[in-house]
Amino acid sequence: MTGTVSRPTLEAVAARAGVSRATVSRVVNGGDGVREPLVERVRRAVEELGYVPNQAARSLVTRRHDAVAVVIAEPETRVFADPFFALQLRGISKELTAHDSQLVLLLTEGRDDHARVARYLAGGHVDGALVFSLHLDDPLPGLIHGAGVPTVFGGRPGWGEGVREAVYVDCDNRGGARQAVRHLLGLGRTRIAHITGALDQTSAVDRLDGYRDVMADADPALVAQGDFTPAGGERAMRELLERRPDVDAVFVANDLSALGVLRVLREHGRRVPEDVAVIGFDDMLPIAEQTDPPLTTVRQDIEDMGRLMARLLIRGLEGGAGAEGPVPESSGVVLPTTVVRRASA
Amino acid sequence: MTGTVSRPTLEAVAARAGVSRATVSRVVNGGDGVREPLVERVRRAVEELGYVPNQAARSLVTRRHDAVAVVIAEPETRVFADPFFALQLRGISKELTAHDSQLVLLLTEGRDDHARVARYLAGGHVDGALVFSLHLDDPLPGLIHGAGVPTVFGGRPGWGEGVREAVYVDCDNRGGARQAVRHLLGLGRTRIAHITGALDQTSAVDRLDGYRDVMADADPALVAQGDFTPAGGERAMRELLERRPDVDAVFVANDLSALGVLRVLREHGRRVPEDVAVIGFDDMLPIAEQTDPPLTTVRQDIEDMGRLMARLLIRGLEGGAGAEGPVPESSGVVLPTTVVRRASA
Repeated sequence: MTGTVSRPTLEAVAARAGVSRATVSRVVNGGDGVREPLVERVRRAVEELGYVPNQAARSLVTRRHDAVAVVIAEPETRVFADPFFALQLRGISKELTAHDSQLVLLLTEGRDDHARVARYLAGGHVDGALVFSLHLDDPLPGLIHGAGVPTVFGGRPGWGEGVREAVYVDCDNRGGARQAVRHLLGLGRTRIAHITGALDQTSAVDRLDGYRDVMADADPALVAQGDFTPAGGERAMRELLERRPDVDAVFVANDLSALGVLRVLREHGRRVPEDVAVIGFDDMLPIAEQTDPPLTTVRQDIEDMGRLMARLLIRGLEGGAGAEGPVPESSGVVLPTTVVRRASA
Repeated sequence: MTGTVSRPTLEAVAARAGVSRATVSRVVNGGDGVREPLVERVRRAVEELGYVPNQAARSLVTRRHDAVAVVIAEPETRVFADPFFALQLRGISKELTAHDSQLVLLLTEGRDDHARVARYLAGGHVDGALVFSLHLDDPLPGLIHGAGVPTVFGGRPGWGEGVREAVYVDCDNRGGARQAVRHLLGLGRTRIAHITGALDQTSAVDRLDGYRDVMADADPALVAQGDFTPAGGERAMRELLERRPDVDAVFVANDLSALGVLRVLREHGRRVPEDVAVIGFDDMLPIAEQTDPPLTTVRQDIEDMGRLMARLLIRGLEGGAGAEGPVPESSGVVLPTTVVRRASA
């Protein structure tokens, strides 16, 4: 609204029509809830003054809102507790702002609210959606598909209706896991355990598959189930120490879980890396640098992933305008990973 | 969309009309960008099957989106770095979800994006807005006022066009500051300093006023300017130690800044509370309990503040439906504060 000082304002229209600004705003935005004689008076004032509401005028021409929804399929408490999401949002926010598109983050208390999220997406309030952290059995991908909203997913959406046609950005979870385990083998470790992420997410399944690619003959007792949180990492590490007290290395599915793992090892007097080497996944900064000892980990560029998701969506929106939806075909972009060596392995 | 299994689906309409789901969705949401013969075919199928799109049907009747925007007038990096905002959002999210209203968080890179935020608000995508962390000279309150969107502010919006009519929720910043300083006086401290918050925010100004209410005759050198961040607290504490090395107590404008203050005092070998007593503001948990020593502070219920903002907005939206806007009059709700005694003072 900067630079529109010389154009007629909403206030001028309100004064001319002898109604409140709120009434003018309502009429301009559809007219519902305002009595017909008032609507007429406002319309006349708008015409006489040549008032053009920026957004409304553009929408009429392009059917564009210059807004993109972001949906993180986690309760809002988790969104603010796990720095992964803040990093992804940072990349998205920068990219959308560079295109003067508004980031609309739809927060929920949990999966029960996903039907409401889908209704908002279907309601024509955004040009497209970026959706990440999907879990197995979440109805969201199907609902979004049904709503016909151009969507780019963060992480491979491995399940759910309509996802075969999905465009997504992911990192090489399986390859990264193989790198992690080979790094531990290279240090001469033989009893290498894996603490998984939440196995209703493809990222966790892919990392487990990568571990198994290299450790095909390993004792199944060396795999313990976590959930991508520090508390989950603690529980899984305690289990591992009971089942296989001779464990000499752990590949943990993410850095946040590794915090819990390091805590339990310290409690049990196991030295890291001398007794047990630990490697994480993410290279979540500053956390991974500040652990004791600093964490060796598999790096993925989370902020860049967010930026790329936003770029793909915007490119799709700008490219196509046919009735079949502007993001044209199924495709995945898979970003590479690298091992970052610090003291823990 | 749960519980609608027996009703005709979007898919059924698409099949009947011989078009894609995306096309049906477009027609249902306004029809722009779809060729007229297709629009006709879809409309016929909708009628024949008796298809009712939930949201669209409701919107036609009530002109309601069951969505509320939240605008935090800070860059998104700050939103995710300061736990204050996560707590306020938690209260808002719970309350909106209880009313089946979608929380729409509008994130920005900074003030330059506020005109875009105002356009989104004016575009008819939400029923109302909750706005907090306003700074002096921010055009947002004026822009929102011009857009005619029912709004409740978090924190007293002390400046800007249109804010005289504002509805807001705040805590008793000035009274809380007086409680803090009186607590320090009660401990026998006499050279009581104040580290302020960002003085372009009313909360910081009010807390400084509260300090001055009690310390009217104090040396002005005992007041150092911070900005509500740990780094700002550090800088201000260093200044204070240079100017008044005999300082024996500090009232810090928020707990997050107190983290920096405690760090600097430790560096300088000053014992807390023996040499310098420290009191914060917020009772930000778990931070305030985990500092060394645990922090005495002025408690405000941040989550409850968020909940109350949402409740006031929804009550306003449900109550009034006149053309003058549903939140009827200017009013502020000011919540009480209490001193929580821990080891630091």
